[in-house]
Amino acid sequence: MSDAYAGRRERLRENCSGKGADAALITRPSNVRYLTGCGPCGATLLLTRERALLALPDDLPPDDTGEHLLGEDLSQLLVTAGADTALAAAEAAAQLRVGDLVVEEHDLTVTRHRAVAALAEGVRLADLGRAVERMRVVKDEHEIADLRIAAEIADQALSELLESILVGRTERHLAMELERRMIDHGADKAAFPVSVGTGSHSGQENHQPTDRRVEEGDFLTVVLGAQYRGYGVSTARTFVIGASPAPWQVELHRLVFRAQRAGREALGPGVESCVPDLAAREILQAAGHSEASPHPVGHGIGLEIREAPRLGPADMGKLDNRVPVTVGPGVHLPGKGGVRIEDTLVVRPLEEGGPELLTITTKELLAL
Amino acid sequence: MSDAYAGRRERLRENCSGKGADAALITRPSNVRYLTGCGPCGATLLLTRERALLALPDDLPPDDTGEHLLGEDLSQLLVTAGADTALAAAEAAAQLRVGDLVVEEHDLTVTRHRAVAALAEGVRLADLGRAVERMRVVKDEHEIADLRIAAEIADQALSELLESILVGRTERHLAMELERRMIDHGADKAAFPVSVGTGSHSGQENHQPTDRRVEEGDFLTVVLGAQYRGYGVSTARTFVIGASPAPWQVELHRLVFRAQRAGREALGPGVESCVPDLAAREILQAAGHSEASPHPVGHGIGLEIREAPRLGPADMGKLDNRVPVTVGPGVHLPGKGGVRIEDTLVVRPLEEGGPELLTITTKELLAL
Repeated sequence: MSDAYAGRRERLRENCSGKGADAALITRPSNVRYLTGCGPCGATLLLTRERALLALPDDLPPDDTGEHLLGEDLSQLLVTAGADTALAAAEAAAQLRVGDLVVEEHDLTVTRHRAVAALAEGVRLADLGRAVERMRVVKDEHEIADLRIAAEIADQALSELLESILVGRTERHLAMELERRMIDHGADKAAFPVSVGTGSHSGQENHQPTDRRVEEGDFLTVVLGAQYRGYGVSTARTFVIGASPAPWQVELHRLVFRAQRAGREALGPGVESCVPDLAAREILQAAGHSEASPHPVGHGIGLEIREAPRLGPADMGKLDNRVPVTVGPGVHLPGKGGVRIEDTLVVRPLEEGGPELLTITTKELLAL
Repeated sequence: MSDAYAGRRERLRENCSGKGADAALITRPSNVRYLTGCGPCGATLLLTRERALLALPDDLPPDDTGEHLLGEDLSQLLVTAGADTALAAAEAAAQLRVGDLVVEEHDLTVTRHRAVAALAEGVRLADLGRAVERMRVVKDEHEIADLRIAAEIADQALSELLESILVGRTERHLAMELERRMIDHGADKAAFPVSVGTGSHSGQENHQPTDRRVEEGDFLTVVLGAQYRGYGVSTARTFVIGASPAPWQVELHRLVFRAQRAGREALGPGVESCVPDLAAREILQAAGHSEASPHPVGHGIGLEIREAPRLGPADMGKLDNRVPVTVGPGVHLPGKGGVRIEDTLVVRPLEEGGPELLTITTKELLAL
C-alpha cells in the first residue's frame, strides 16, 4: 500500500508542476488520508518536489499513525498538542525555501489561511482547488476491495437485524444495534449515523431515529453504511412489518424498486452523470410523484460519504470506469410513510458485467 | 427559551454596532445554535439591526427545526437541498442593502468567503472574530441545567456499567455499551466517542478502544460524556479490576486523585486560567511525573466539547462565575498503564459553595 500512496503523491506533484507550484499544502483530512494513509488526526501534508513532510499532532492515538509510516519518502514533523499542523507545515515550507505553494482554499478557513501566509515567509500562495478530490473520483482495486468489505459488513448487520423481532422496538434502539453489529463485524465505525424510520417516518432520506416503536403494518426504512479502512458505503432498504402489506405499500415499493433499478442499470463508463437520476425520476414522475424527489438520486462515495461526482438531474460530465456511486431514490408521503431503496455500486463497463453491486441485501419487499 | 435566544441576538447586535457593522453572518454551527436554538443542520443566521433571518436547507430532518421557530423576530429562508445556506444569506444581505457585514472568518473557508463576497454585492465584509464564542463562555442557568442533566446521564451510564461483569469484555464493547446506555437515559448522543482503556492502555487521554479484553489486575480508564440539548460534559474515572490493587496502582491513583482535587479546588471567579493546571501539575511533578502531562489540565465545555477558556500552564485571563470547565489530569506509564480522573464543574464563588461538581461518580479507586 505504501507504493500506492507514493504513486498518488507523485501524480499530485505532476499536477502542481503543471500549475507552476513547487509545493502543495494538503489540509483536508480525506485528502491527507488518500495521499499518506494517515487517519483523521489533524495531520497536514507538505508535498514538495523532493519531499513529503507530514505534520502530526504529538497527542495522536496510536491507531492513527499506522500505515503512513511505511512511506519511503515520507518524513514526519511532530508538533505540540493543540498546535495547528498547517502552521507547522507552513513554517517548514519557508525553511525549505518553497517559492510557490498551493493550498486547499476550500478547506482552510480565512483565519487559518492568513496565519499560514504569515508564517510562510517569502512563499507565494495560490489555490490548489479540488485537485486531490478529482484524483479520488476513480478508485483503484485496493480501494474497491475496501468498499466491498464495508458493504459486506453493512449487509451482515442488516441481515442479522432482519432475523430478530422488530415489533415494539424503537427506531433509536434499532439504529444503535445496527451500529454495534457493524463494529462487531469489523467496521471502523458506522460511515454515518444509521437512520431507522418506521410508520410515517419511513422513506425519508435524513430521518433521525426517534423513540417511535415499530408497529404491525408499518413500513420500516433502514439507511446504513459501514466504514472500513476509511472507506464508506451507503445502503437503504424498506420492509413491511407483519404478514400482509397493504396494497398501497406493495404498489409504492414496486414503484421505487423499479425507479432504483432503472437508475442502477443506467450506470456505465461514458454515461452522463445526470442519466441515472433522470431514468429513476422519470418512473417516479410517471406515477405522479413529481415533487417526491428533489434530491439527486445518488453521488460518489469513498473516503467521504458524499463526494464527486454528483448524480443529479442537471449534473454534467461523464461517469468513468471504477467510480463507486450510490443510487437511492425514495418516495415519502407525508403522514403516511414511504419507501427508500439505495445501493452502492461501482461503475464498470458492460464487458466486465456492467455495474458491480456492492450492497447485496435483497431489495424485495420482505414482510417481517 | 425563545427569549433567551432573542436576548443573545440583541447582545450580538450591540457588539456589531460597536464595530460599525450593520449585520452579522453567523455560520459556525455551535454559534448558530447558541443564537437560535437550531441544531446542527447547515443553517446560517443573518442578523441585521431589524431582522434575524435563518437560512435553512430544505431537507432538514424535522427534529432540527424545533425550538428556533418560537423566536418572535426570527424569520426563515428555506434554501434548496445541497445549496450553501451562507450563500443564500449573503444574497439576502445584498437585497436588504446591508452596508457593512461581519462574517466568521475562523469558520468560513477561503473559497466560501469568496463566494459570499461575490453574492453580497455592494456589501463590505469584515471579520466578526470569535465574538459569539466569547459570549458563550459564561453560561446562564438554563445552560447549566442542561449540563447538569448531561452529567447525570453520564453518571448513570457509568454506574450501571460498574455493576456488570467486566472481565473478558473488550474495550470496544464497553465503549459501545456506555454510548447505548447514555442514549437510553435520554442523551442526544455521546458528546464524543467514549474511550475505554484497559491494562497498558489505561490512563491515556485519546485512547481509541481496541479489541483488548479486560483482565484481572488491570487498571480500567473510562472517558465519557453525554450531550443533552446540545450541551456536553466530559468525565473520566479509573478503576482496578479484581479484589486487590497492586501497591503501584494504589499509589498512582492516589497521586492523580490528589492532583485532580488540587486542580478542582483552585477554581474560582477571578482566578487566573493557568492556576488549576499549575496546582495539579505541581503535585504530579513533585512525584517525578514531570513529562507526564504535556496537555492543559482542562478547558471550557458547553455546546462544544472543547471551548474557551483553556486551562493550560501558560493561559492568561481570569475565570468568571458560571463558566463550566473540565479538570482532568492523568499519568500514563508506557507499557504499564495509568490513571486519569476528570470532572466537569461550574465555576462558582465561595459564597455559593465554590465550584459546582456536575459529574458526581465516586473518584475512589473501586476494585471491580
